[in-house]
Amino acid sequence: MVNQLEIINKMKAAERVAIISHIYPDGDAVGSSLALYHALKTDGKAVDVFLCDGIPSIYSFLPNADIVKKEYHQGNYDLAVVLDCGDIGRIGSCVSVLNLAKFKINIDHHSTGISFGDLSLIEPHASSTGEIIYRLIKMYGLDIDKEIAESLYVAIATDTGGFRYSNTTSISMQVAADLINCGIDVSDISRRIFDILSLSKVKLMGEAINSLEIHNEKLAIMSLNNQQIKSIDASSEDFDGIVNTARNINEIEVAVFFVEKEPNEIKVNLRSNSCFDVGKIAKNFSGGGHKRAAGCNFSNVSLENAKSAIIAEILKTL
Amino acid sequence: MVNQLEIINKMKAAERVAIISHIYPDGDAVGSSLALYHALKTDGKAVDVFLCDGIPSIYSFLPNADIVKKEYHQGNYDLAVVLDCGDIGRIGSCVSVLNLAKFKINIDHHSTGISFGDLSLIEPHASSTGEIIYRLIKMYGLDIDKEIAESLYVAIATDTGGFRYSNTTSISMQVAADLINCGIDVSDISRRIFDILSLSKVKLMGEAINSLEIHNEKLAIMSLNNQQIKSIDASSEDFDGIVNTARNINEIEVAVFFVEKEPNEIKVNLRSNSCFDVGKIAKNFSGGGHKRAAGCNFSNVSLENAKSAIIAEILKTL
Repeated sequence: MVNQLEIINKMKAAERVAIISHIYPDGDAVGSSLALYHALKTDGKAVDVFLCDGIPSIYSFLPNADIVKKEYHQGNYDLAVVLDCGDIGRIGSCVSVLNLAKFKINIDHHSTGISFGDLSLIEPHASSTGEIIYRLIKMYGLDIDKEIAESLYVAIATDTGGFRYSNTTSISMQVAADLINCGIDVSDISRRIFDILSLSKVKLMGEAINSLEIHNEKLAIMSLNNQQIKSIDASSEDFDGIVNTARNINEIEVAVFFVEKEPNEIKVNLRSNSCFDVGKIAKNFSGGGHKRAAGCNFSNVSLENAKSAIIAEILKTL
Repeated sequence: MVNQLEIINKMKAAERVAIISHIYPDGDAVGSSLALYHALKTDGKAVDVFLCDGIPSIYSFLPNADIVKKEYHQGNYDLAVVLDCGDIGRIGSCVSVLNLAKFKINIDHHSTGISFGDLSLIEPHASSTGEIIYRLIKMYGLDIDKEIAESLYVAIATDTGGFRYSNTTSISMQVAADLINCGIDVSDISRRIFDILSLSKVKLMGEAINSLEIHNEKLAIMSLNNQQIKSIDASSEDFDGIVNTARNINEIEVAVFFVEKEPNEIKVNLRSNSCFDVGKIAKNFSGGGHKRAAGCNFSNVSLENAKSAIIAEILKTL
């Protein structure tokens, strides 16, 4: 509570504010940054938002998305607010903005979040940084208008997987209820952030499903060879989440998706549903991750050999 | 308000209650029925639930799912409560339970819902019948325990498409917040009702994606011929929603999915996103539906001819 009031007082006192979030920004990074931007602008501040990787096109419909800067050029800030960054390394090249700011505030919801800056507000029980920003804007005494509500809704909805992950609390739902009351179009926003697929992603999904193999009724394997990938002009984002198609098959406990991005260079995505530790498997192949989601890479190994090695290792204990 | 209190008084006065919902029951039909069942049981009533098509396996994890009856055998009810039925024809064969009951109540949220029975409560602004039942249980003075909360959550979450459709209101979210406070496991329930796929559905999706054609950048066509369908041992539920994979492709306005269920017997599913009226197209081929979702059938027509006819008709105005 002390930190919250101190943070608000620092924001009120500042004239020039920089808002900074992490590399590969997700909906929470983008939404919480744009919401705080809009709120502080309405209070007359000069505000800039820095995301060193820019805004993913999926979020470009959000109000003020066009003001986001990827690089720091000049000017000093009274205050830099870092949002949704578990550690300072995730700020990327925009760390120079932070370093030059007179005062530094760090607001995050990750349980592994590290305190840095002059003031830290880390709330592991909040679903998202957006949920914390919602409360701060309220405490600041500013209205949550439709523009702010849209950005905060995107932040909370994306970080809770559309109100489906275990971080979805009654507070997330109450905040969402209040944001809906601000006049946002839930179905339009939801369609933009959850439904729309690129043609290349759909094609990758089709090829991945064609490759589906089931072993021992519990292990689902999908793979894309380099030729298939080359024939589809896909972005790296297009591969995200495809492994879940295999993981979500009824009775499947472990799903693995092999992607031969370059010839004999294989990226492996592993997922499990409830009991199997895929982190251990990935570690055996010099990869990393945790029990339910992990990954590893093979270099100078054929796709077939990489598959055989991983399948054999999983079937030892599945 | 009058009807709500009258309804509660009738429920309180009844000793034997039949709860009835519609054919092809969805999450709202099942969830609202089981929630009301559980509430009235805790108040000491003898209660039966009738769903003439039984409970879809996806909802069989819900508390008391095993008590649902498909057929009426004997016994008279003081009260029959019909839930989520836009018209009496949708009750199916269990209408005999309704006919024999001493008093009949009809509770629904469909805007096209027709008043029938002795008392009707039709609330088109409610997201779901589950949302209405939540309020009635509260007004009745009964606790929303975890079992009731699980069923109501399924009712509301499914009818709002996971809090994504335009019927998602701030009230839906507030009710969801309250249900979460009753101790339900949001991530487990969400996984069960939204994520889990049958292997046959995944295979159908793969084949459908393989068949994808894009016309004029705005029309996406997918089709499955009879041979493909025969090679995959799919249930009719497995075909549900596959058309959305085509509809959700970026820039696509109209999606059509052709299914050759029997040789030269074609079922056509049409969807549009924002401006094109697929209901008109379906009507031209003796089908029906509305602007954004419609369907029609071809009999004794080859899959290729059915596709050509529909594509030509759409491209006239797209």
